[in-house]
Amino acid sequence: MNKKAVGGGITVPTETGFVDETLQLLKRWDADAVRDCDGTSIPEEIKKSGYKVYSTYFVARGDNDFAKTVPEERTHFFVCSDYVAATGKTLKIDIMSGYFAQQIQPEYDCDLSRYWEVIDRTDGSIVPVSDWTANKKDNTVEIRNCKLFHQYSVSFLARALWDSTQMYNYITNNWTKDKDLPFDARCEKTSEYIVKRLDKWLDEHPDTDVVRFTTFFYHFSLLFNDKGKEKFVDWFGYSGSVSVPALEAFEKEYGYSLRPEDFVDAGYYNSPFRVPSKAFSDYMDFTMRFVSKTAKKLVDKVHEKGREAMMFLGDNWIGTEPYGKYFKDIGLDAVVGSVGGGVTVRMLSDMPDIGYVEGRFLPYFFPDTFHEGGEPTKELKKNWRIARRAMMKKPLDRIGYGGYLSLAAKFPDFIDEVERIRFEFKDIYAKIKGNDPHSNLKVAVINAWGKIRSWQCFMVAHELWYQKVYSYQGILEALSGMPVDVSFISFEDVLGGALDGFDVAINAGDAGTAFSGGKLWDNPELEAKVREWVYNGGGFIGIGEPSAFLKNGKYFVLSDVLGVDKELGFTLSTDKYNLQKEEKHFILKDATQPLEYGEGMKSVYAKENTTVLDISGQDVFMAVNDYGKGRAFYMAGLPYSVQNERILYRACHYVAHKEELLKRWYCDDTAVTVQYYPQIGECAIINSSDREITTNFYDGQGKSEKVKLLPGELKWRKA
Amino acid sequence: MNKKAVGGGITVPTETGFVDETLQLLKRWDADAVRDCDGTSIPEEIKKSGYKVYSTYFVARGDNDFAKTVPEERTHFFVCSDYVAATGKTLKIDIMSGYFAQQIQPEYDCDLSRYWEVIDRTDGSIVPVSDWTANKKDNTVEIRNCKLFHQYSVSFLARALWDSTQMYNYITNNWTKDKDLPFDARCEKTSEYIVKRLDKWLDEHPDTDVVRFTTFFYHFSLLFNDKGKEKFVDWFGYSGSVSVPALEAFEKEYGYSLRPEDFVDAGYYNSPFRVPSKAFSDYMDFTMRFVSKTAKKLVDKVHEKGREAMMFLGDNWIGTEPYGKYFKDIGLDAVVGSVGGGVTVRMLSDMPDIGYVEGRFLPYFFPDTFHEGGEPTKELKKNWRIARRAMMKKPLDRIGYGGYLSLAAKFPDFIDEVERIRFEFKDIYAKIKGNDPHSNLKVAVINAWGKIRSWQCFMVAHELWYQKVYSYQGILEALSGMPVDVSFISFEDVLGGALDGFDVAINAGDAGTAFSGGKLWDNPELEAKVREWVYNGGGFIGIGEPSAFLKNGKYFVLSDVLGVDKELGFTLSTDKYNLQKEEKHFILKDATQPLEYGEGMKSVYAKENTTVLDISGQDVFMAVNDYGKGRAFYMAGLPYSVQNERILYRACHYVAHKEELLKRWYCDDTAVTVQYYPQIGECAIINSSDREITTNFYDGQGKSEKVKLLPGELKWRKA
Repeated sequence: MNKKAVGGGITVPTETGFVDETLQLLKRWDADAVRDCDGTSIPEEIKKSGYKVYSTYFVARGDNDFAKTVPEERTHFFVCSDYVAATGKTLKIDIMSGYFAQQIQPEYDCDLSRYWEVIDRTDGSIVPVSDWTANKKDNTVEIRNCKLFHQYSVSFLARALWDSTQMYNYITNNWTKDKDLPFDARCEKTSEYIVKRLDKWLDEHPDTDVVRFTTFFYHFSLLFNDKGKEKFVDWFGYSGSVSVPALEAFEKEYGYSLRPEDFVDAGYYNSPFRVPSKAFSDYMDFTMRFVSKTAKKLVDKVHEKGREAMMFLGDNWIGTEPYGKYFKDIGLDAVVGSVGGGVTVRMLSDMPDIGYVEGRFLPYFFPDTFHEGGEPTKELKKNWRIARRAMMKKPLDRIGYGGYLSLAAKFPDFIDEVERIRFEFKDIYAKIKGNDPHSNLKVAVINAWGKIRSWQCFMVAHELWYQKVYSYQGILEALSGMPVDVSFISFEDVLGGALDGFDVAINAGDAGTAFSGGKLWDNPELEAKVREWVYNGGGFIGIGEPSAFLKNGKYFVLSDVLGVDKELGFTLSTDKYNLQKEEKHFILKDATQPLEYGEGMKSVYAKENTTVLDISGQDVFMAVNDYGKGRAFYMAGLPYSVQNERILYRACHYVAHKEELLKRWYCDDTAVTVQYYPQIGECAIINSSDREITTNFYDGQGKSEKVKLLPGELKWRKA
Repeated sequence: MNKKAVGGGITVPTETGFVDETLQLLKRWDADAVRDCDGTSIPEEIKKSGYKVYSTYFVARGDNDFAKTVPEERTHFFVCSDYVAATGKTLKIDIMSGYFAQQIQPEYDCDLSRYWEVIDRTDGSIVPVSDWTANKKDNTVEIRNCKLFHQYSVSFLARALWDSTQMYNYITNNWTKDKDLPFDARCEKTSEYIVKRLDKWLDEHPDTDVVRFTTFFYHFSLLFNDKGKEKFVDWFGYSGSVSVPALEAFEKEYGYSLRPEDFVDAGYYNSPFRVPSKAFSDYMDFTMRFVSKTAKKLVDKVHEKGREAMMFLGDNWIGTEPYGKYFKDIGLDAVVGSVGGGVTVRMLSDMPDIGYVEGRFLPYFFPDTFHEGGEPTKELKKNWRIARRAMMKKPLDRIGYGGYLSLAAKFPDFIDEVERIRFEFKDIYAKIKGNDPHSNLKVAVINAWGKIRSWQCFMVAHELWYQKVYSYQGILEALSGMPVDVSFISFEDVLGGALDGFDVAINAGDAGTAFSGGKLWDNPELEAKVREWVYNGGGFIGIGEPSAFLKNGKYFVLSDVLGVDKELGFTLSTDKYNLQKEEKHFILKDATQPLEYGEGMKSVYAKENTTVLDISGQDVFMAVNDYGKGRAFYMAGLPYSVQNERILYRACHYVAHKEELLKRWYCDDTAVTVQYYPQIGECAIINSSDREITTNFYDGQGKSEKVKLLPGELKWRKA
C-alpha cells in the first residue's frame, strides 16, 4: 500500500480490542487510513499494518501539567453581564449571573478601567470608571450615581478555565477526568511551549503519519450557563480569542484601541448575522494573521519530521478562515470536516489552496444511532445521497467515518452499504477529479461577508437547524449540487464591478442581517450599481428581505428591480391591485408538490407590472419582474427540497434569459440532477431520492429519452 | 311633537313618491327626524308633518356656476410622480402617470421652484431647479445632469378638478351630471362666497331644521388612478388641504416654509401610521385652526337663522379633528357618522364638547343589500349587536338610517326588526344616558398620536378591513364594549406623567409605526418612565411589536418589562429554553376556542423567567411577566372576537393585579358582557351572539347564579 496515495480513499476509525475485525473491514472497505477518536486510541497491530495513521492532536489544551504553571496564560473571553435596571441611585450587578463558574471566571488581574466596561444600556453611554467598583469576593460590580430605571450592564474580560469542546463532551458523557485547561498561544510561555511540545510528541508518535490538529488556538464561541447547559454558541465567534497581549498588540499596530464593547456588541458578540463593524473586521484580520503565522510554526515542525499536517474544521479553528487571505500561508496538507449535506461538502471541497480535503460522514458510530431498533443504514444512505449531489459538482478527496467500529460491525447491512458507497465514491473520484462539470450559469451570492464565508452563510452552530434560518440555508443546499458555478462576493466586491462576470446574483436573508445587507444598502453607489447591472441584462434573485433598508419611501432598496416591496404599514393607503397569480410559469413547470417557503415572509406586495407567481391573501410569495434587459425573481423563502432546488435552478435560467439552455443535461423529475463532464465525455444522472424514477432525460442538444433509475442510483452515460 | 327633543330619537331617510308609506313608518318607528340622501330630496308633505328636517349641505362644492368664475381657487393636492431610474444623463418623467386626469391637473400657475420639487430618491438629495424643466404641454419634467441609475421623482402641486366624494359616487353609480368642482375656502373670493351662499340657502330652505354639513372644506386624501380606480385613500390625510395661500400663511406664522416633501413624505403622505414629523404636526395645527375659525362663521350663520348645525364625520372633514383642541370652537350642535361596529360608536359617542351625536347604522337601504335573496335583517341584527356593546358603555344620542326607504319597505321582517331596535335603543338611552357604568379599571392606549386619534388608530379608510391592521383594530373593538374606562394618550403625555392615573397601559402595533411608536422609543426618558411605572405596580400590555426600536441590544425597548423580545437574527447564538407553555392561566380560563392572533407575529421569544401562555415552534404568541410590583402581558395580535375581548379583559385585570375584581358584574360565557349602572342600581346583561346562552352571572359581590339569554338578548336586572 502506498502511504502517499490519498485521493479517493477512506479513513476508518479504530479501537483497541477489535483488531482482527478491524483489519478485515479495512480490507473489505479498501481503506487506506485509520484514525483515533475522542476516547479511543489506535491499536499497535493496526498501526503497523501499512495504513496511514491519523492522530488527533490538541495544541492549546490537553496538557494540564504545563497549563497549571501558567495560570495567567489562559485564553479569555469578552462577556457581558445581564442588563439590570437601576431602581435606586446605586446598583449591584452579579456579573457571573447566567454564566458557568466552572468554565469562566472574571479576570481581575488586568487593568479593569480598560478591559472592563460598565454601560448604560438605556442611553448607550459609558459609565465613568469612578462610578463603579468591582468586588472580587462575590463577583459583583457596584455602580453609583445611576439614572433611575436605566438598564446597566458590565462587560468584562473573563478567564477560560475549561476548553469548550472538552467541556461539552465531558458534560455530555459524564466524564470525571481532569478538565482541560486552555492556554493561549499568544502568551509568552505558551507560545514557546506549544512548538516544543509538538516536537516531543512527534518523536513519541513515530507511527503517526498525519497529525490531525483539533485544532489550533482559539475555540469558537461556546459558553455554558449556570445550569451547565449551552448558553451561547457561534461557530464563527471570535469572543474567545481575546487577551491583554492581543489587545495591546492590536492597538500598537492599528493605532486605536478596542473597547470591550467592540466584542460584546450589545450582546450580539459580532454574530455573522451582524453587518461586521470596522473594529471587528480589523480584529478578524489581525487574529487571522496571528493564527496563520503561529500555526505555520507547528505545521513546519510536522513537515520537518516527515509527517502530514491536517486541520479539523471546527473546535479551535477560529482565525484559520479557510476562505481567508492567510490560510494558505499555514502550509497545511489537508483539512477534514464533518459532512451533513451538500453545503458542508462544498465548504470543504471548494477550499482553495489545500492539498486534499476529507469529509467525515454520518452517522457517527455511536450508541445514539447504533442501538437495537436504530436505523443507521437509512441515515447512511440519506447522508450519502444528499452529500453526493454536491460531490458530483466538486468532489471531496477522501471520505471517512468516526466512532466505534465495533458498534457498526453489529449491523451487517450497514457494513455492506458503506462498502457500496466507498466504491461508488472511488469510482466518482477517479472519473471527475479535476474534470469540472459543465455549467450553464455563473451565480454570485452577495452579502456583507463575501468570499470569506463561502458556503458558511445562515449558519449559527455547525449544521444545526434553526427556525430563523432554514428558509435561507436551503438556498445554499440547493446551489451546492446544482450544475452552476457559485461564488460568494461581498457588497464591496460589487462596488468594484464584480457582478460583471456573473449571469445571476442572489441576495437573501432577513432585513438588517449581514446576509441581506442591512445598512450597507444605505449606499447610493451600491444601489445604482446593481440596478445598472440588471438593467443591462443581469439576473437578480431576492429571497426573504433582499436589499432591505428603509429609506426614500422604499423598504427594499431595489424594489423597482425586484418588482416587490414589503408593506411596513406606511403604504397601506396605496391600493394594491396586482393580486392575481400567473399559472404555469416557466419557473414552476416542474413543480408538482405544494410550494414551500419555510418560515416565509409576510406583507410583501407586487408592484403594478410585476408578474405574480404565488400569493396568499395579500402576501406575495413568488414573483418575477422585467427590468430593462434584465430580470428579477423574488421568493419569500427557500427551505431545501428537490422541488425548491429545481425552482431555483429554473429561476436562475429565467432571470439570466437562458431558458433555452435549461433542458440540456437535464431530467424532468426534480429529484434527478444531471452533471456533464466534457473532459471525459460522460454525464452522471443522479437520483437523490429513495424512489425508483422513470423520467425524461435531455442530452446536450436537448434530445430527450426516457431513463429509469433505481432508488438512489447514479447512472453514467456517454455523451 | 317637540322638535327640540333629540336624545333617544331616530332619523329616517325619505324620498319622493313614497309619502304615505313613509308617514306610516315614521309613526311606527316613533321617528322624530327625517333626512335626505345623495340623489333624494324630502317631499313637501313630510317636511310639513312636524318632523325635524335634516338637509345635506355641501360647503366647498355643488356650485359650479360659482366655481367656474374662480378656476384659480380650486383646492389642491401635493402629489408625487412615479420613481423613475435615470438610464442616461437626462430623464423625462411623465408626472401624471398613474393619476386620473379628470381628478387633478398639475398646477403650473405657481412658483414651480417652490411648490414643485425634483428629488433624487437614491441619495435623497434635492435636484437644483436649474437642472429641470416642466413641460406644460405634455405634463412632463425633464431632468438634466442625472446620476446614472439613481431614481428620480417629481413632487408637484396639483389642482383638484373634481370633488373626491362626488367623483367616487359618480363613477360607482355611472352618473352623467356635472362634475362638482371643488373650491378652496382659504382663497379670497371663495372665503366670502361660502358664507353668502349659505345665508341665501338658509333663506331658500325654511323647512330645514338641521343643516347637515357634508362637510366643510377639505376632503380626506382620495386619489384615483389613470383607470379611474382608487389609487390612494387615507381617511385622515391632509394632502388635499394645501394651497399657495395656505403655505404662504404658514411660513409667515411659523417662520419656516414647508417643502412639497413635507407633504409627499417619500410617498407615504403622512399616513397616520407614520410617526408625525414636526412639520406635519405644525401644519395640522395650523389647518385645524383655520378650519375651526372658518367653519364657525358658517355655524354662526346657521344659528343666526335659528337652525341647528350638524357635521357629518367624513368626506370633507379634514382639519375638524373632533378630538382636537379647536373643535369645540366651531360651535356645532351635533355630529353624525356611520357606525360599523363598537369602534365607530365610541369614536362618535366619546366626542367631547358636542351637543349630541347620531350614528348612521347599517345596512344602507341600497340595492346591494335589498335585493331578492339579500339578507338585510341579518346584517341589521349583526350591526346592531356589535354596536350595542359599545353603546352600553357610552351611548350615542340618536340612531338613524340612510338610503331608499321604499326599498327597505319591501322586507317586512326588516321593518319589524328596525322597530324592535329603535325601541330597545330608546329604552337603553332613557336608562343610561348620563349614568356612566361601573368600571374596574382605567386603561390607557399609548401611541404617537394620543387623544387626537381617540378610537381612530389602525384605520386606513373608514372602517375598511386591511390585512395588515385587523390584528390590531381588534384591540379597539374589544375595548369599545368593555366595562373599563379607556383613554388615548401620547408618548408626550407619558413623559408628562400621564400614566400615573391608569391601571393598565396598552402599546400595540407594527414596529416603526406611530401606533407602536417607532423612533419615539429612542428616548431614554420614555423608556425609564414606563419601566418605573410598571415597576411600581402598573400593568403593561404589548401587542404585536410594542416598544420596538432596535438599539442597545434589544428590539423591544421594554423587553425586560414585557419578558419577550423579537429575534431579528442577531441573537440566534443565544440559547432559548423557555419554550413550554403554562396551561390554564388566569387569562385563558374562559377560552374555549382555538386561540387566534390574526396575522400574528413571528420570531418573538420569551426571556428566562417569563411565563409563556402560548407558543408554536419557537414563536411565542402570548406571555406574561412580573416586573417589580407590576406585570406585563404580551400577545402576538388581537383580531376581534368575543374570546379575544375576554382574553384582553382578563389580561387587563391580571396585569393590574385586580384578578379578584374580575368576577363582579360578569358572565362566564365570552359572548356576554355585563354593565352595571350604579346610579340607577341596575345592570345590563348583554348577549352579543346569535346563540341562546345559559351561563353563570356574577353580581357586584361575586355571587353567581345561572342566567338564560335568548339570541341577542339584552336583559336588565336590579342590582
